[in-house]
Amino acid sequence: MAPTTAETILLDHGSGGLASQQLISGLFLKYLGNKVLSALEDSAVMDNQPGRLAFTTDSYVVDPIFFPGGDIGTLAVHGTINDLAMRGARPLCLSLGLILEEGLALSDLERVIISIRDASESCGVPIVTGDTKVVPVGKADKIFINTSGIGLVADNVEISTSRAQAGDKIILSGSMGDHGITIMTRRAGIALSGDLRSDSMALHTMVQLLLTGLPPASLHTLRDPTRGGVATCLCEIAGSSGLMLEIEEDCIPVRAEVRAACEILGLDPLYLANEGKCLALVAPDSADQALALMQACPEGAEAAIIGTVIAGAAPAIPGSHGIRPSLAVTAGRVILKTTIGGTRVITPLHGAPLPRIC
Amino acid sequence: MAPTTAETILLDHGSGGLASQQLISGLFLKYLGNKVLSALEDSAVMDNQPGRLAFTTDSYVVDPIFFPGGDIGTLAVHGTINDLAMRGARPLCLSLGLILEEGLALSDLERVIISIRDASESCGVPIVTGDTKVVPVGKADKIFINTSGIGLVADNVEISTSRAQAGDKIILSGSMGDHGITIMTRRAGIALSGDLRSDSMALHTMVQLLLTGLPPASLHTLRDPTRGGVATCLCEIAGSSGLMLEIEEDCIPVRAEVRAACEILGLDPLYLANEGKCLALVAPDSADQALALMQACPEGAEAAIIGTVIAGAAPAIPGSHGIRPSLAVTAGRVILKTTIGGTRVITPLHGAPLPRIC
Repeated sequence: MAPTTAETILLDHGSGGLASQQLISGLFLKYLGNKVLSALEDSAVMDNQPGRLAFTTDSYVVDPIFFPGGDIGTLAVHGTINDLAMRGARPLCLSLGLILEEGLALSDLERVIISIRDASESCGVPIVTGDTKVVPVGKADKIFINTSGIGLVADNVEISTSRAQAGDKIILSGSMGDHGITIMTRRAGIALSGDLRSDSMALHTMVQLLLTGLPPASLHTLRDPTRGGVATCLCEIAGSSGLMLEIEEDCIPVRAEVRAACEILGLDPLYLANEGKCLALVAPDSADQALALMQACPEGAEAAIIGTVIAGAAPAIPGSHGIRPSLAVTAGRVILKTTIGGTRVITPLHGAPLPRIC
Repeated sequence: MAPTTAETILLDHGSGGLASQQLISGLFLKYLGNKVLSALEDSAVMDNQPGRLAFTTDSYVVDPIFFPGGDIGTLAVHGTINDLAMRGARPLCLSLGLILEEGLALSDLERVIISIRDASESCGVPIVTGDTKVVPVGKADKIFINTSGIGLVADNVEISTSRAQAGDKIILSGSMGDHGITIMTRRAGIALSGDLRSDSMALHTMVQLLLTGLPPASLHTLRDPTRGGVATCLCEIAGSSGLMLEIEEDCIPVRAEVRAACEILGLDPLYLANEGKCLALVAPDSADQALALMQACPEGAEAAIIGTVIAGAAPAIPGSHGIRPSLAVTAGRVILKTTIGGTRVITPLHGAPLPRIC
């Protein structure tokens, strides 16, 4: 039975008039309301706190919007919090920008908003400002979400892909490929045995533990291997730092279900997206302590040291204006020592194995 | 002739791999590059400054993406800067989240990015962080943009729709309906004589002049009448403040071309969207000074005092939890004294006269 108009998003919900107001009060404020958001001003205004400002933005267009282990709402909260955490920032607040397709079931929207509330509450990071647009049927696909986030970086914290140093140990916080393979099999309607589920998870608590638990300045780089997977992420670090990275294939955690699915589908888990994992590059003297701190957190229980940063001549990059070398020239600077004793050069992702993964 | 693949956006441009990197370096950094953005870290990190934090977000889905007076890129910069300015914030930086439809002409994307650069530079507000997603043909409409923004509010500044006070003079910064009627006629392919063009414009400089030029605490409320027009905006202020607003129709500036187009199309300019105008509610003793300050700026050259805030019993609102009354109950609290000497009750926008206006 086709839903009645009262059960779906209408163009009027994006008008800025009464229907918009009803959607805001009846759904968004009902679940997400707090003193700042509920004032419904043009901007949220909040007390400032000590530290440098971190600022990030991410749009989420994942298809399907619901999947095992999460949905587009959990991704939108966790993903943006993680982008703040990867600079060592303590996340302060998020914005929520929705683009809705006319005809979206209100029950689906409500389910997404409840996920956003639950993720926001459990992370302790409120939604403080928002915006909603509605486009006609066929001009978007159900729901697109943008979350931007503000965080604060303590004065003694300097985390960056360019700060990787020769000798650093490369720690991976958990298993690779869970999110990518879950979306891929779910979208293709492939039923595989085993528990395939997204790893959608926020990492800011674990990062703060590392920052407070490790000697100052021993944590150099954090990066979350989302689109492009850990392979592309390692190439980005090599490109940014001008160093070489040597990885042990045997040390990279991949769940048996994910490995089996990858073999069936001809995919490499190193190129699949993750939504709750990070790489941490740590000074060698502090690596064991960092590993223990991560393993003590649920989000890092399977953390492992997977390799080492080694000195390598950074090639001269024409036209880079000192900004950062192109990914293309990082080829040859990330080396994987394979299980069977060989050596494989890791290159960044070329084609898209799957659009709309996040 | 159909464009070749090299001239359009491909799904690979959203993969996070090499094609994404080429788009970032070849287009985004070429035009928008600055020290913070070009580091391409997961978050921008910037020095903090004194003041409370203002934070806002807006998605732009306007159709058509190019129109007289601007394009989706200028709207995305001006609109978010204006949302910060409406709280009295000095805009600090913007984020840029792009959702691109596969097949979008790269020349159109470049034109939008150049508009964003020009607007960002002329406003003095840099883009410091960004994200790009690509969705398959037919899953979005050319380009959707989210900009979020951070600003700083000086300690002695308190601007809010709830701070309107009885006696305040209501100043409108310029003519109504230019943006709405431009999009409407352009989309419908209606050719009218006269220069119809969007008023897309940033208001932060004029607002800072008001904040520094007026006696402390005499500027109470700022609000930009975008979706829903000045009528809905006045109702929102009445709802937030619990007061009544009395407006003189004769005093509301509407360009002759816009008035003529509205008469032909049966539209009311008070409900049409604007993208470069604001309402300012000012203590009566400072109103003339505020008007003069606004008129001295190009963006406020046609500013006019259009009415007065008057005391009115705010009805009790069941279930509002002290947050703010629903727009629905503001009916009867915004009164328009018409040109012919009558009185008309202004209600908020009910239906959407036009989706995708911004």
